[in-house]
This record gives sequence, structure tokens and C-alpha cells, in this order.
Amino acid sequence: MEDAAGEPGRCAAVLPAGGCGERLGSSTPKQFCTVLGRPLISHTLEAFERASWIKDIIVVVALESLDLMKAIIHKYGHKRVTLVKGGETRHRSILNGLKVFSENRSDGTANEKPEVVIIHDAVRPFVDEEFLLQVAISAKQHGAAGAIRPLVSTVIASSSDGFLDYSLERAKHRASEMPQAFQYDVIYRSYLQCTDYDLDFGTECLHLALQYSNVKAKLLEGPPDLWKVTYKRDLYAAESVIKESISQQLCIITNVNKDAIEVGFLLHESLKLHFKVKAVSSSMCKTIHHLQNIFHGQCCNFICINVKDSDFEETQNLVDLLQTTNAGISYPLVILSVHSTSEDYSSGINKLIGIRKLAKEAYKSNILVYGLLINIDQDKVQLQQAVCEGTAIITALIKDRNPALVGQIMVA
Amino acid sequence: MEDAAGEPGRCAAVLPAGGCGERLGSSTPKQFCTVLGRPLISHTLEAFERASWIKDIIVVVALESLDLMKAIIHKYGHKRVTLVKGGETRHRSILNGLKVFSENRSDGTANEKPEVVIIHDAVRPFVDEEFLLQVAISAKQHGAAGAIRPLVSTVIASSSDGFLDYSLERAKHRASEMPQAFQYDVIYRSYLQCTDYDLDFGTECLHLALQYSNVKAKLLEGPPDLWKVTYKRDLYAAESVIKESISQQLCIITNVNKDAIEVGFLLHESLKLHFKVKAVSSSMCKTIHHLQNIFHGQCCNFICINVKDSDFEETQNLVDLLQTTNAGISYPLVILSVHSTSEDYSSGINKLIGIRKLAKEAYKSNILVYGLLINIDQDKVQLQQAVCEGTAIITALIKDRNPALVGQIMVA
Ligand SMILES: [Mg+2]
Ligand SMILES: [Mg+2]
Repeated sequence: MEDAAGEPGRCAAVLPAGGCGERLGSSTPKQFCTVLGRPLISHTLEAFERASWIKDIIVVVALESLDLMKAIIHKYGHKRVTLVKGGETRHRSILNGLKVFSENRSDGTANEKPEVVIIHDAVRPFVDEEFLLQVAISAKQHGAAGAIRPLVSTVIASSSDGFLDYSLERAKHRASEMPQAFQYDVIYRSYLQCTDYDLDFGTECLHLALQYSNVKAKLLEGPPDLWKVTYKRDLYAAESVIKESISQQLCIITNVNKDAIEVGFLLHESLKLHFKVKAVSSSMCKTIHHLQNIFHGQCCNFICINVKDSDFEETQNLVDLLQTTNAGISYPLVILSVHSTSEDYSSGINKLIGIRKLAKEAYKSNILVYGLLINIDQDKVQLQQAVCEGTAIITALIKDRNPALVGQIMVA
Repeated sequence: MEDAAGEPGRCAAVLPAGGCGERLGSSTPKQFCTVLGRPLISHTLEAFERASWIKDIIVVVALESLDLMKAIIHKYGHKRVTLVKGGETRHRSILNGLKVFSENRSDGTANEKPEVVIIHDAVRPFVDEEFLLQVAISAKQHGAAGAIRPLVSTVIASSSDGFLDYSLERAKHRASEMPQAFQYDVIYRSYLQCTDYDLDFGTECLHLALQYSNVKAKLLEGPPDLWKVTYKRDLYAAESVIKESISQQLCIITNVNKDAIEVGFLLHESLKLHFKVKAVSSSMCKTIHHLQNIFHGQCCNFICINVKDSDFEETQNLVDLLQTTNAGISYPLVILSVHSTSEDYSSGINKLIGIRKLAKEAYKSNILVYGLLINIDQDKVQLQQAVCEGTAIITALIKDRNPALVGQIMVA
């Protein structure tokens, strides 16, 4: 990630997360709203943890959210995080975050002062490591740097009686977004010099660096994913974006049994039109080590092709294995337990009714198990049709990740 | 809607829909992207049709989209729409739209000139009638009016070498959104007077009215729903918003059979915690007239409680009736075919396997039929538990409206 030409030096991040989410029309501050069952801020923290060169992550939260935040850090195993109590405004919260590198705590300890500090909103979970690095390197070089985006709407000024005063030329202006990054000394000095009015009514760190340290920030056009989760519709969008991103890869686990191989092969051919697919024989899938090699342990979706007479043994094995890795902590995992049958559907279903109990247990570990029955006692055309329908069902269940349907047995 | 104190006079609307959707990262212009299976622009047109006082709706589309737009108008039965060929820029397209009221067509006809014209984007489907009326009345009074929203991000200006020049005070500026409305003579005159530079590079109608007719627009703070579908995530959000809005109301159709009444009653009690529920006896539900009385024909969700021995007769009746009303044209309808069983699940399912065929047929009319089996041969506690699970399954299926799962039989 870091090369000689552009190293950011020692880096830290400050995430103000003390807002009260008024615009969302909800009493939960938006950084604590859950997206796919996990608080938004935990998704954002994950993005920062992926960047191992960011040594310290300072999360600034309102006093009343301190316990909740501690619980989130504990539950999702977040590392390198220091919690700091928020101030009454955004700027005061950021200042509190910056202070941990310059002032000793009551126990005499302090966080090691970084060369560059990245400031980011807890409610912008989709920032990627590459852009963080770009902003950090640019800040090291120029003193300050910040993400910008084209304006979606024209910006206007109104007169005090509510009429149009003037409109700005859209092409000459940009929306200032996050992340922003600063040489630590530049931004800390700016905060120490600024007025109470700035601290109470200002919002823009770039402005403070310009006004109090005479540092003009380098502006970097960021990707559209940097948008700020502000309204309820943004939570919907965030959930869809995450679902989409964890629904790209699929692991098919097949047994060497002839029936399993045939259905597995047909499904594989059909599913690879919708997913990046890896096929693994079930014998290769007995240890955590093997499982973690599949897509570097990042795979959230599994198809278990079960042997006709073994009921859902393969599925049970996979659930057991995934439970020991704790993989469901970050995202809900999906397992499709696929069963071929040569009998009529109902007796196939009768044999599998026990999958409901298995699914209930698995769900406690955030593993979503669904059943899928495919009748292989059909002619080639009918079988291909069933595989097509099965693929549509599998795709739908993976993309939706609906907990209410776990343990249900679908028929293709 | 119109009262003496504030009547908008004769009203028309112009919807520029000639954009090419570059920002979406898709080759389909965003106004033609489907949301719940229907092109976005059709959702927007529906919002304007609800306002019966808007007499003419002018849709301006690029030449290459003309046939597609005609097909959309035909398929969804849009009324009061006149199609006009777009210009090379947004302003030129709007001007083409305005001309239909002042210039005769080649066949000598023209649309009747309105007093007030509303200009709105095809990609803002969630505008409501009340706000349209407010903007129109305000335009009649002041010459021009437009929707504004608070800025989500700080707006900055950059120097030519990509550094921060200055940032605007966020509180003093607003985002200019749509709809906007104008006295027809004001906006048409402004367009006729403005320069080619304006027509080629400008975007803001309020600005033209100010510059060329000296009319200062009244600015009206609009609801957050006015946002412009710009990025792929906005399509996700739009779909979620629509799904949410059509998943509020639920009609339960029950038979007088004792078992059906009991399950129906328990489900009703449980479902009314999640939906606005109306219960109807199946005998009341034999004609289109009765069905249209339920929630004024706006109900998209039905629970059919079937009698034990009749298989899915009630469900079939409802499907037949809904098909004759063409109700699935606008939005996918959901029918949950609920069956109580006293046997083991598998033979219950066996009896119902024919529901798959029914569901396939119904889906051709955009009616999504799912089965739900509830075992009523259990003790009170178990039955209540099954009803709880059934409610969760019903809620999930209604909120997701997933076509891939039609004809599946869920077990509670
Ligand atoms: Mg700032
Ligand atoms: Mg305009």
C-alpha cells in the first residue's frame, strides 16, 4: 500500500459520532441504526481497520452512547479504537478527539502523536482503503486534503423573506465530503486558535485549516460511495449496497456421490452466470483452514449439495465449521442446503423437516440456512428447467438474506 | 384541493426526460430504469396524474427514446400526456416542451395555453399532490416558485489548480430542487429572450426567470422525498421506499368455516401489529365492486385463509377477480394462500403442490402467490408460536415481493 514516493507517515483517524440523527426521523442516532443487523458505525470501523497503516482510530461519542459504543466494539471485535467523550458540537467533538494525542489522560498515558490525522464521518461506511491512503498522502504533502464531489443540485441563496437572491454556477462549485486529512500539527493548531463561534457554529475542518493555519487543502474527487447516510432512504440504500457487495461470491460444496455431482455440475454451470463461483469437494471442506482458503475467508454464501440418503449431513458439517470460525459476526452467511430427490416432493420434504431445527440453531450464529429440493428423476429438459428455477431461488435468497425464511424448504 | 383563496388556474406540467444517465454507471437512462418492474418515469407520471387539476403533462424525450416512451404510456395507461422531442440540452428540452402551448403543430393543433406551468424531473418520482399545488399556487401569485432543501454537504469553490479557494456558509445557502412552477408567460418569455449560451450551459429555470423577466422566485422548503434519483444507490432507495409504501395495508379474506375463522382470527390479531388490516368474508369478495371498496382499491396485499378441504379454491377465486381488474399493472400484488392442516406437513404440502401452477399463471398478471401452511393440531402455545412465525413469514414476503419465490409453500 505505501510506497517510497508517497508514504503517509504515522496515521490516525478521528471519527466524530456524537450526532443526534434528527434528519432521519428516528430517535436512534443514524450511526447506531443497524444495517444488515449491525450498527452503521461498525461497518465504518471495519473500513478503517482494513487499512492497517492507520494506527489509532479515535471514536468520539456522546456521553449517553458510551456504553452502547463499548458494547459494539466488544461484540464486533474492533481493534485499535480509543473512545472519547463528545463535545456539544461537531467541531468540539473533533477537538476532543484530537486532544488524545497531545494531552495526557488522568492515568498519565496518551496516544502517540500521528504525523497525519484523517477525519471521517461515522455515517459514511463505504470509504475504501485506497482513497483513505490518497487523502492521507496528499495531506502529508500539502498540509490538508479533502474529498469533493460534483454538486447534484444547483445551490442558491435566498433573501430573508424567502425569495431567490442568486444562484451559484454549478460547474464552479463542489460539495465538500469526507474523508479529510491533515498534518496533525496543522489541524490541532487551527483548533486551538479558533474562536468559540467557530467551535459552536462551524462544521468544516478545511475552513479552519485555511483560516487559522493558512493551509489550502488539496481537493480530491472521491467516488460516489462516499455519500453521507442522512435520511431513512440512505439506510435503505446502504443496506442494498452491502447486500450487493457480499452477494458476489459463492462456494459450492459437493460430495463425490454421483447424483450430487450431476446436480452440482448443472447448478454450477447455471450459477456462474450470476456469481463468482468456487467448487469444493466436501472432503476438502472438513477443517477451518480449508474453508478460510476459499475466497480468503471472505465468502458469505454456500451451496451444499447433499447426497440423497444422507439427509442434511453435509449442511450440518458446514454449519458446525462456520460456527467455530465465528464468520457470521460481520455479515449474515447464507447456506443453501440442496437435496436431490427421485420421489414425489412431499416425501422429500418429510425427510428434511428436521432442517428447520438445524436452521434455528444456525441462525443464533447469524447463519441463514434454507432448503432447496430438486427432483432429478425427470428428463433432461425438465431437469434443466428445475436447475434454472433453482438458480433463481438461490439468487433471490442470497440477495435478500431474509431471516424470516430460514428453515423453509423451497422446491425447484 | 383547490380553494378560492389559492387556485392555481389552468395548470400544465413539463417533464424533461431526455438525459442520458451517465452518472448512474449504466447504459439505460435513469428515467427508464425499472423500479419494482416499472420504469421510473411511469412512477413519476402516476404522481402527476393523481393531481387531476394538472390538465396537460408534456414529457420531453430524446428521439431515440420516443418509441420506448410510447410503449410505457400505452402499457401503464397514462393519460393527459403529450410527447415532445427533446433538444440537445436540458434547457432546450424544456423550451421544446413549453412551445407546444404557443406554436401550432404541423397538423394545426396546439395544447391550450396554461396559466401556470410546473417543471419537474422525470427522476423525482415521490412528489406529492399537496406540494405540487403549493408550488403552483405560489407561482401564480409571485410569477415563479421552486422547491429548496437544506444542504447536506458544505459547498466549496476550488482554485484552478485543485486547492480550496473558499467555503460557503452552509446556513445561508440551499439546494434548489424540483418541482418549480412559473406563470407560463413569464417562463416562456424568459426562454425566448435568453442566449444560446444559457440554452447550452445553463440548468436552472429559476435563474432565467430572474435574469430575463426580473421575477424573483418564491422558495418553498420541500420534503426530503423530492430527491433526484442520480446514482445506482438511489434506485435501491427508490425501490425500498415504494415497497415500504405499498406494504402498509393488508386485506384478510376468510371463509365461515370454523378452522379458517380460528386461524384467520389469530393471524389478524398478530398481523395488525405490522399492517393496517381489513378482514373480509370470502362471500363478500365475489365481485370486483366489493374488492375495490377495500382501501379504495389501493390494497396490494391479500391473505386468503383457505378451508381445509377446499385446497386453494379461495385463492384461485381471488386471483381470477384481481386479474379482471388489471390491478397488478401498477404494482406487484401479493397473495398469501394460508392453509391449516391437521396432518403432518408433507401430506399438506402434497395436496397443495398444484399451487405452483396457479402461481405461475397469476405471475403473468404481476400477482405474486405464495403458500403458507399452519398446523392447527397443536396445543394453544404451539399454535400461537406458529401464528407468530407465520406473521414473520407473511411480513417478509410482502415487504420483499420476490418473484423468484412465487408458488413456494412456507411452513409455520
Ligand atoms: Mg469538517
Ligand atoms: Mg431548471
